Amino acid sequence: MPIKSHEELSEIGSRVLRSAGATDDVADRVARHLIGSNLVGLDSHGIIRLADYATWLQEGKIAGDNRIEVVRDKAATCLIDAHMSFGQVAASQSADIAVQKAQVYGIGLVSVKNASHIGRLGEYVEDIASQGFIGFLCCNAEGAGQLVAPWGGKDARIGTNPMAWGIPSGRESGGMVLDMATSIVPEGKIRVMMRREEEIPRGWVLDSQGQSTTNPADLYGPPVGAILPFGGHKGYGLMLAIEALSGVLSGGGHARPAAADAWFTHGSTFTTMAIEVESFRSLTEFTDDVDEMLRHMKSSPPTTPDAEVLVPYEIESREKSVRLANGIMIEDSTWDRVVQIASGLGISI
Amino acid sequence: MPIKSHEELSEIGSRVLRSAGATDDVADRVARHLIGSNLVGLDSHGIIRLADYATWLQEGKIAGDNRIEVVRDKAATCLIDAHMSFGQVAASQSADIAVQKAQVYGIGLVSVKNASHIGRLGEYVEDIASQGFIGFLCCNAEGAGQLVAPWGGKDARIGTNPMAWGIPSGRESGGMVLDMATSIVPEGKIRVMMRREEEIPRGWVLDSQGQSTTNPADLYGPPVGAILPFGGHKGYGLMLAIEALSGVLSGGGHARPAAADAWFTHGSTFTTMAIEVESFRSLTEFTDDVDEMLRHMKSSPPTTPDAEVLVPYEIESREKSVRLANGIMIEDSTWDRVVQIASGLGISI
Repeated sequence: MPIKSHEELSEIGSRVLRSAGATDDVADRVARHLIGSNLVGLDSHGIIRLADYATWLQEGKIAGDNRIEVVRDKAATCLIDAHMSFGQVAASQSADIAVQKAQVYGIGLVSVKNASHIGRLGEYVEDIASQGFIGFLCCNAEGAGQLVAPWGGKDARIGTNPMAWGIPSGRESGGMVLDMATSIVPEGKIRVMMRREEEIPRGWVLDSQGQSTTNPADLYGPPVGAILPFGGHKGYGLMLAIEALSGVLSGGGHARPAAADAWFTHGSTFTTMAIEVESFRSLTEFTDDVDEMLRHMKSSPPTTPDAEVLVPYEIESREKSVRLANGIMIEDSTWDRVVQIASGLGISI
Repeated sequence: MPIKSHEELSEIGSRVLRSAGATDDVADRVARHLIGSNLVGLDSHGIIRLADYATWLQEGKIAGDNRIEVVRDKAATCLIDAHMSFGQVAASQSADIAVQKAQVYGIGLVSVKNASHIGRLGEYVEDIASQGFIGFLCCNAEGAGQLVAPWGGKDARIGTNPMAWGIPSGRESGGMVLDMATSIVPEGKIRVMMRREEEIPRGWVLDSQGQSTTNPADLYGPPVGAILPFGGHKGYGLMLAIEALSGVLSGGGHARPAAADAWFTHGSTFTTMAIEVESFRSLTEFTDDVDEMLRHMKSSPPTTPDAEVLVPYEIESREKSVRLANGIMIEDSTWDRVVQIASGLGISI
């Protein structure tokens, strides 16, 4: 498996996207985001997506330029139509606008429709947190990607609806970042375990009859099964709140019968929020208190002697240090596809 | 067990609180809130609290009047010092201010410190939702009430940190209300099961050695155990985000070593948000879409034939209809204590 530096991978990603039709700014932004996901260990949202993104660009499913339009604006809030601009571009810009509004009003909230896949949510809230603002972002897939069953139900009806919080802290690089799907597990993890012919734990997936199963293939059918929400009825409730905050508030599409047949979509809706800490207290006092809280968690003895009590983003921060120093290992199949798509665009790597 | 109408209970509650030192407005507001909790079936936050509240008033732990002071204000946000006013009064007022700010700026966020116990969070976000705004509220106990272990740890380090979302909907009375602790179960439920000498399910509580236990008494010790977060590491992460959003943002107190010995506090910090739907789309379109989403969930066949797929607040709304029509049943021990505290204040019931 090749090991590449993040600079080299970003450069390759950007060249591929430019050749596929993206403007320089858009290509740089998206490539940096993809490699940023690899850096924190979230390879499922990293360079593995490059070939899909390039293909979507060539097929005209995603705009290569930045077409973001503010369609409604009311002081501390606005609604954006991204007109199928890259999700990474729309999400970065939504975070910038939310912060700008929060600087003036104390808080800013931006809802976005018609964006493409936005990648790793954690990046945007980390950017917000690193500027001294509490960041929040949640998204859906325009009502498509219905893989998750409502609590107590056996049929899939809603997406894996992730959310992220970014809390300014002196402990980690940009802050404490919490980035999570509201399904008990991401769909991609089940797919990987199916390919490896591994069993999944009970409590992850229902088969088409609504029975708990350990066979990952039962999710994909036919007939299809369903993933369960995380945390039972509470996670299910949060999943619905996210659907309302992203798909319904933006008007970009929500879980409904008409969207049920779309197994996967490349589109998304999302809502981004920034809260200015200095509107309430000094940022130093705030981050000192957050750090004291996090140390207090870590002061608990672990349940098993060889384990460690972690706080959100601790694993990712450590992984980032390692990969910045040692490079990023890319699976052969992913690398082959990168080389292939590049070659098809006349780029030799 | 006596059955009483909500009007009669509210009247009794208000008279008791007035006699214990509350102003007319405060007494009415708090009594209405307590009985409102009984109406939706949350008896643990209902009239059972009246005697404690009256005692705290008499002991000077809670102010009988409304002393809420806006200490910082920045357009769409403000910080309130409640100076130990009743939590119900401070929370209602925070919701009113958040809505007023959202009417002007599109969103409003209010953080509050030094309030007493705020009762049922759902009430405040339901009030916000019924006015056409998305409501959010989260709170902590000023860093005290450390009953919950960090994920992977065996010692209790943080409170049960609840949050609530209120989403405007035509389906339920005021909207879709989600009101949940981020612990896997409320502490009160474990206490009740201990009194009834029942076993608790595995996965709720760790004993003092960090082992999963079915004995509810292991939580209380000595030595004390810990409740687990809901939903594993994800629920733990949300619990920390809430601690930052309420205790740290308001500056009212967060989970830390100095607060660890306080098993229970009557104080709380919280943060309330309102988002104006009409800043993004028409309220009718929004509620139609939310209702379509909720119907889509309910259209899933249940996992067991005699069950039903529910949406948040469905059980509570049904219970409220029943109790509005038939009255509220009060346990003898609770009723005896109400009569006793009333009698001590010279009120005959």
